[in-house]
Amino acid sequence: MTKICGDAENFATSALRGFASVYSDIVQPVRGGVLRAAPGKQGKVTLVVGGGSGHFPAFNGYVGAGFADAAVAGDVFASPSTQAILRIAREAHLGGGVILGYGNYAGDVLNFSIAAERLRAEGIDTRLIATTDDIASAPAHEESRRRGTAGDLPVFKIIGAAAEAGLSLDEVEIIGKRVNAQTRSFGVAFDGCTLPGEKEKLFHVPQGRVALGLGVHGEQGIDELDLLRAEELAAILCDRLLKEAPANAGSRITALLNGLGSTKYEELFVLWEAIIPRLENAGYTVIAPLAGEYITSLDMAGCSLTLTWLDDELERLWRAPVESAALTRGEMRGAYRDSLPVLAEAPVAYMKSLTEAGRQGGRCVASMMIKLSAALTKAEPELGHIDAQAGDGDHGQGMARGAAAAARAARAAVEAGAGPATVLAAAADAWADRAGGTSGALWGAGLFAFSTAFDDSAVPDAQSLSLGLRRAMDKITALGKAKPGDKTLMDALAPLVEGFDNGLRQGSTVAKAWAQAAQDATIAAEATKDLLPRLGRARTHGERSKGHPDAGAISMALSARVIGEELSAMAVK
Amino acid sequence: MTKICGDAENFATSALRGFASVYSDIVQPVRGGVLRAAPGKQGKVTLVVGGGSGHFPAFNGYVGAGFADAAVAGDVFASPSTQAILRIAREAHLGGGVILGYGNYAGDVLNFSIAAERLRAEGIDTRLIATTDDIASAPAHEESRRRGTAGDLPVFKIIGAAAEAGLSLDEVEIIGKRVNAQTRSFGVAFDGCTLPGEKEKLFHVPQGRVALGLGVHGEQGIDELDLLRAEELAAILCDRLLKEAPANAGSRITALLNGLGSTKYEELFVLWEAIIPRLENAGYTVIAPLAGEYITSLDMAGCSLTLTWLDDELERLWRAPVESAALTRGEMRGAYRDSLPVLAEAPVAYMKSLTEAGRQGGRCVASMMIKLSAALTKAEPELGHIDAQAGDGDHGQGMARGAAAAARAARAAVEAGAGPATVLAAAADAWADRAGGTSGALWGAGLFAFSTAFDDSAVPDAQSLSLGLRRAMDKITALGKAKPGDKTLMDALAPLVEGFDNGLRQGSTVAKAWAQAAQDATIAAEATKDLLPRLGRARTHGERSKGHPDAGAISMALSARVIGEELSAMAVK
Repeated sequence: MTKICGDAENFATSALRGFASVYSDIVQPVRGGVLRAAPGKQGKVTLVVGGGSGHFPAFNGYVGAGFADAAVAGDVFASPSTQAILRIAREAHLGGGVILGYGNYAGDVLNFSIAAERLRAEGIDTRLIATTDDIASAPAHEESRRRGTAGDLPVFKIIGAAAEAGLSLDEVEIIGKRVNAQTRSFGVAFDGCTLPGEKEKLFHVPQGRVALGLGVHGEQGIDELDLLRAEELAAILCDRLLKEAPANAGSRITALLNGLGSTKYEELFVLWEAIIPRLENAGYTVIAPLAGEYITSLDMAGCSLTLTWLDDELERLWRAPVESAALTRGEMRGAYRDSLPVLAEAPVAYMKSLTEAGRQGGRCVASMMIKLSAALTKAEPELGHIDAQAGDGDHGQGMARGAAAAARAARAAVEAGAGPATVLAAAADAWADRAGGTSGALWGAGLFAFSTAFDDSAVPDAQSLSLGLRRAMDKITALGKAKPGDKTLMDALAPLVEGFDNGLRQGSTVAKAWAQAAQDATIAAEATKDLLPRLGRARTHGERSKGHPDAGAISMALSARVIGEELSAMAVK
Repeated sequence: MTKICGDAENFATSALRGFASVYSDIVQPVRGGVLRAAPGKQGKVTLVVGGGSGHFPAFNGYVGAGFADAAVAGDVFASPSTQAILRIAREAHLGGGVILGYGNYAGDVLNFSIAAERLRAEGIDTRLIATTDDIASAPAHEESRRRGTAGDLPVFKIIGAAAEAGLSLDEVEIIGKRVNAQTRSFGVAFDGCTLPGEKEKLFHVPQGRVALGLGVHGEQGIDELDLLRAEELAAILCDRLLKEAPANAGSRITALLNGLGSTKYEELFVLWEAIIPRLENAGYTVIAPLAGEYITSLDMAGCSLTLTWLDDELERLWRAPVESAALTRGEMRGAYRDSLPVLAEAPVAYMKSLTEAGRQGGRCVASMMIKLSAALTKAEPELGHIDAQAGDGDHGQGMARGAAAAARAARAAVEAGAGPATVLAAAADAWADRAGGTSGALWGAGLFAFSTAFDDSAVPDAQSLSLGLRRAMDKITALGKAKPGDKTLMDALAPLVEGFDNGLRQGSTVAKAWAQAAQDATIAAEATKDLLPRLGRARTHGERSKGHPDAGAISMALSARVIGEELSAMAVK
């Protein structure tokens, strides 16, 4: 029988609020979950974890520096909704992409997968890591069907540490998949748990018996025995896990002995005393192990042992500093504090170009951004009107705001004597920062990619413009996942890129090649009125976009024309 | 019955060794207890705490920087011996004298007092601090007779911080006596605990009752009531403690909500949510509170609230950095923010339809969602009953909650003048967000897919309904991976989709075609009672679902009938 409860249907949300109040130095509440009280560094990969409630400290207790950036909490034992995941991931996103971490249960898989699709459609690169550590839940050759249990802690902790260290989304994802593949759990249950407000336990294990492999929500186990002595239980846990050691795994592991709720600390320590010699006798070095309650199941009686095979990189990440309700590692706390993100923005120092040509190039780029800003500000109402036919009508506003910020940043960089690469990079970052929305993120990232083709000590030339344009397109393609024909800005950008290169190949000047390509882009942008948006944007840009061009393609073409005019005025070679 | 045990008589020492092994970065084991792994500064006052085992993290978990220098562990619920206290205090002594801290129980008082005498005789200045925080154990004018319970944590933590700060033995003792005098606890028990190796609990609280003031070893309480709601329990805990506020105490307190073992974290957080406004309404500022397991009693069910009235000095010491198994707190964790506002969500802006027909279509859709919500709310108990035969009984609740949220969102969209696609998309998102679980996700995604067939500037017609229905089914199939015959909502949805199209082909009106299809769906839903669920749902819906229809199919058919009635009333073409 539940002992403390208000309205049973509000149990999970009430518990969430209570948790956030107690741990207000570490987390801040949002509807359906929590964010870090002090957000991580801008640009880092964002780890959002989640699952049903009733498993504290999973998952809200995993939020904190060096661990997760946010957690989404469903109802007791129920997946959080797609909307909650979406909302919280958006809010938590720091610009470096998102990893969604959850246990491999049908409801969670469904909701996190849909959320990932939507996030990607919004331009937020999102990867999924479903933990599959429970070896009792499916045989060895069907790992992908296994459930996620206490492996959540080492897997998410290591992913969180990798993200905190500033690794890229690709790198963090690879590490996440590796640590999940090298993590195994096996659990036993002595008795079931009680759902809030219920008089009876959800399920039972007969008195005096132990169920092997029983899931934390009562999922079918694999065997049932009479209660075992601590040494016998340790033998079963260790033997089953060591038999499944990953191929080529080394001799270093970490171990997590997890209590499910009413199997208490001293019992876990007694069991641990029997486990540790078995692991050591098997030739393993046990690194920074844990024994306690790290993922519970309400008042369930039982425990599980989790082993994670470590390599150099995983060991470093496992040992890395962390501060959360579930786990706080002390020894490196000082070191970590020093690298805590400062909330106030440091003034940006732009590097002065070493050559007059570079400074001239910087001025050219700034001049383009200023013209672009003027043109987009003028076109704002029209772009807004076009967007309103098919989308949410804010495209003109976002573009004008982004371009204005970019122009300001470019001006500041030029005043510091910066070269074209620095000026354009500064403009790009300011654009992404201020424009907001998907198009802001894409434009910012695209311009930034463009800037990498420039040389800070030279005036941009035909070759660097061509290369930059292509890099911008590649970046936008990678982030936005749209192809020409999908009724997006790609419909104007692709002909611009192709047309410019063709013109150069046919011996045109930079200005002429660009002008012609901008013309092609304009025609293609107008022609998007006959296209239908691809599936991912169907909601806002669905049927009703019939007969209307895409605002993103129109503004891309307009920008191309404005820059063409500038190139012509400057007579860039 | 104890679940994990080797030889019962070695339980406490085995648990101690296991603890020291897991926390080897913080403590080192000595016979009968633990010392800090890294000893404190030479010359500082030494804090040695102790008591019976079975209360982890008391007392071994209190050892660490900024807290205790050593802990002495007796057998389960038994005082450590004079010899053990002596031996460990001698070993831990850093030259600045010793404070022995323990709870006010006869055996502990005896052994610690004798040890203190001996230590003094050996030239080690030694003072005694026995905690007396439990207000249920003796009346207000007999404080010295009161037992020590969860007050151990704030009292010893503050003494440890004072010692760490380099205060003299006299100063530390004065602070220790002051904080003990300003600390009050009151606890309740829901059930007793089990001694290692025993089959029965040491004592019981009758099922459905709560014992007020019952001691952690089963000592006599002061009253017994029927189980209380969280708010009522919070009121009792707070009122009794606040009535005993120390004279001249200020308005700053810290609060510790402690779980005794099998009363779990989420329950504590739910209770905390009811406690905090009471403390604040009484005029208190709550500083760095704690909720969790800080002094347990094996697997006992119950909790206690401890308040410590703070002055400037005590607040500073309470907030001081500490690193131990029980509590780790660093400077960076900073001040407790009393009431962080929940981040406000941006209000949703729905786009107004450009045509009157579109707005009318939006109203039609909203009207359907409102009727659907009413019908599902009415059917909630019956759906729950059907689901309980085969599943976990929450289907009716989820559907009713989802539909109600959808109806609200649809209404809001209609107020903004939105067309049918926008209204249904808004309803779909709200449904998925609030309903939760797998069926919530499927219904949300299905309705969303449905909405993409509508035109925001037109009343839905036969063609868009047919297309929408098919898109919904395709989406649900893609996500849920179920086919007709798998005993899911698909068993009702598939005949609905087919039947509607057939009816239209045969020249029926929309209303008639839909009504007939809803009839087919109802028959098919009832017929699921003869089906067995597919493998993936076997656990919750296995054998016991024989002879019972699938709740998801039943609710799908019901929804189809409700919408059919609306279509008929609206005379949609």
